[in-house]
Amino acid sequence: MTTEAPSLIDVIKGHIERKEWDEAISLLSQLRAADEADLFSELSNSEKRELLSHLSYAELAKILENVKKDDVGNISEQVNGNTLFEAVDRISPDQGADILHHLPAARSAEILARMTERKAVQSLLGYADDSAGGLMTPELVALTRGMTVAEAISRLRKTKPPRETIDVLYVVDRHKKLVGKVTLRQLILAEPATKIGDIMEHDPVFISAGTEREECVRVMAHYRLTALPVVDEQQRLVGLIRLQEVAQVAEEAATEDMYHMVGMSGHERVFAPMRDSIRRRLPWLCINLGTAILAGFVVNLFESTIARVVALAAFIPIIAGQGGNAGAQTLTIVVRSLTLGEVSFRNARKATLREVSLATINGLAVALLAGAVAYLWKGDLWLGVVLGVAMFLTMIVAGLSGALVPLILKLLRIDPALASTVVVTTVTDVCGFVFLLGVATAMINYLT
Amino acid sequence: MTTEAPSLIDVIKGHIERKEWDEAISLLSQLRAADEADLFSELSNSEKRELLSHLSYAELAKILENVKKDDVGNISEQVNGNTLFEAVDRISPDQGADILHHLPAARSAEILARMTERKAVQSLLGYADDSAGGLMTPELVALTRGMTVAEAISRLRKTKPPRETIDVLYVVDRHKKLVGKVTLRQLILAEPATKIGDIMEHDPVFISAGTEREECVRVMAHYRLTALPVVDEQQRLVGLIRLQEVAQVAEEAATEDMYHMVGMSGHERVFAPMRDSIRRRLPWLCINLGTAILAGFVVNLFESTIARVVALAAFIPIIAGQGGNAGAQTLTIVVRSLTLGEVSFRNARKATLREVSLATINGLAVALLAGAVAYLWKGDLWLGVVLGVAMFLTMIVAGLSGALVPLILKLLRIDPALASTVVVTTVTDVCGFVFLLGVATAMINYLT
Repeated sequence: MTTEAPSLIDVIKGHIERKEWDEAISLLSQLRAADEADLFSELSNSEKRELLSHLSYAELAKILENVKKDDVGNISEQVNGNTLFEAVDRISPDQGADILHHLPAARSAEILARMTERKAVQSLLGYADDSAGGLMTPELVALTRGMTVAEAISRLRKTKPPRETIDVLYVVDRHKKLVGKVTLRQLILAEPATKIGDIMEHDPVFISAGTEREECVRVMAHYRLTALPVVDEQQRLVGLIRLQEVAQVAEEAATEDMYHMVGMSGHERVFAPMRDSIRRRLPWLCINLGTAILAGFVVNLFESTIARVVALAAFIPIIAGQGGNAGAQTLTIVVRSLTLGEVSFRNARKATLREVSLATINGLAVALLAGAVAYLWKGDLWLGVVLGVAMFLTMIVAGLSGALVPLILKLLRIDPALASTVVVTTVTDVCGFVFLLGVATAMINYLT
Repeated sequence: MTTEAPSLIDVIKGHIERKEWDEAISLLSQLRAADEADLFSELSNSEKRELLSHLSYAELAKILENVKKDDVGNISEQVNGNTLFEAVDRISPDQGADILHHLPAARSAEILARMTERKAVQSLLGYADDSAGGLMTPELVALTRGMTVAEAISRLRKTKPPRETIDVLYVVDRHKKLVGKVTLRQLILAEPATKIGDIMEHDPVFISAGTEREECVRVMAHYRLTALPVVDEQQRLVGLIRLQEVAQVAEEAATEDMYHMVGMSGHERVFAPMRDSIRRRLPWLCINLGTAILAGFVVNLFESTIARVVALAAFIPIIAGQGGNAGAQTLTIVVRSLTLGEVSFRNARKATLREVSLATINGLAVALLAGAVAYLWKGDLWLGVVLGVAMFLTMIVAGLSGALVPLILKLLRIDPALASTVVVTTVTDVCGFVFLLGVATAMINYLT
């Protein structure tokens, strides 16, 4: 990155600290939009309020466009209705719709009613925020097959598309159906009299407006596309998704998966206010305490067995640790593969069978090892047998539940990553302890 | 996506199964490159060999360019040296260098020596595979400030850049230093006589060739760039990174983090050959068994305490489960924040202190709850005190180790995600059991 940028940010921060608003604002416009939004997010609420009251409509628009969407509501509370309208009206329809999505309904309707591009924004608001329709921009220049290259270029010059939405141009037929694509590079390199139909690429990859966000990014990454055309139910071209606008989606989706798996909100951040973090983590820790106590109850059921063979107590963490780890491996790969689209209901049975087979093979190896260690450690062959058998069964349960829990959650239309670790851990703990202490109870006469 | 594509793939698969190679190959070229590479990866080794012997150089080049880099070595073993050379020589220098990186050294040198773009490829081979230099393409058209728009366009027409590397054009001074950028859109919309210097954007974001892969993607996503110019140590423009080529990096990095955390290779796939999966998971399960046995040994040290107060056995999974979950929350957020660049050594102390404070507050809540449950369940206040105190201390250790383990691994230049879950679980288990059984031993006279 450029070397000047950080120091410029520091200078602006200094001005803000000293409440030199005019100086701060005059420098703010020299920052890149993304850096300006970042800096704004880091300010305290009172600093934000001060700064907002000094900003021009255009500067406010730039911040609204680039700030994380969680902050939009916060900002909207601190400026009056007219200022907010003036800013939002300067923003592209797709970003504008995104912002309206994050405002209280009354406020959103009030702004929408006055907007210049009301129609475009309104049609975008009909799509779910996390669908292709919610991501796309309706600003595009559509060409026809019969046009010449010179005509296409003069149409571009006439429309003067305001933003970078024309690196790829789409070709439609008279029913507005997508039939081809032409890159700006091809237009520049072609002879002016060439027909668009002769240089266009036929059968471009497209996506329907209802497709979910992650799938759009996956398709673009897979086919290495910078733009993805979006069609409605009649296959008519209605917008396009630009890769640079969605490049962060993959990263955000992965973060969410990881956080959900351990029972944290996808919004958790390492330097979030403490109160928010407690609210995001403590409930899950309490649920987890409940499941841990459940596992404790199971152990408690076999109190008389443990009283007779105290050595079993040392096996409890071995079963819990090993089952938990094996379950986490299966769970992680299944959750991730569901997100990446590599596993779906179509091949869920195959994936589950494969994980259980793997668990059986790995389980056999680990069980033999664990049994041998227990025998050598305690000098009692039967204790080795008990640990080995329990370990083998626990590993199979870990594989089975690691695969099935996320699939069942998906079937129930619950995020498969959501807290699946806790569920799988509970299942393996409870089953593992029943196996360990149940087998020990059945064989109690050999053990004492 | 288009509806025809899947059925075409099925038709080709049918031809391959029936060994109708000519039919398969004639249809193969109709597939999109990414789908062709996917289909190829799914074939058995003998099918791959057959197909490879029937492919033209151009078709082989297309597959090599699009196939996962892990498969490159595999393919290279099945074709002769001349065929491989002819195919690689048809590929862009950046992709060519990538492929040579994945070949045995002798084979790579032999091909390089004969390549048309030897010089370009050789300079790229000097960069690490996962650096900006390894990602960039050296194919770019650099403009100068003094050129007119018409001259720039005619230079483009003359160079006829073979690939989509000119959506953004960079402007350099006479020392080849980067001074600005112009988009193709601006060129098309501007008056032909306009000077480039008058329409260019000054001070574009750039990155140095040694920057690591994930950071490149992060910068592009942050500033919403489709192309990122790369400069050498003298700040001279040496290449550019295209967003569509690196869009998968963010997803791959996240997958790697998640898999490493549970001790699996980042290459693990849900439908990989069983043998590979066993090789990728079993070693870690064995290491984990070792750490679980260590925890078992700790419990064993307190055998006489457990023999006197068997109820303690039921608390073992409660401590282990709760410590493990709390540790996993902290660990996940710290590992992810390290990857995303939100935590570095600069603010590591702040992050650790914050996690420990959170652990103290959440720990207090959970400890009170756990102690109360134990008291109500067992009807013994002292048992409640033992569990509560042990729980509180375990939660703090979980927060501390969850933050410190990944930071220490990073300091040792080991991937912070790598198996950190197992380390943290071991630390919390061992400490947790010492707390639980140690406190119980110290208070043994109150408990019996």
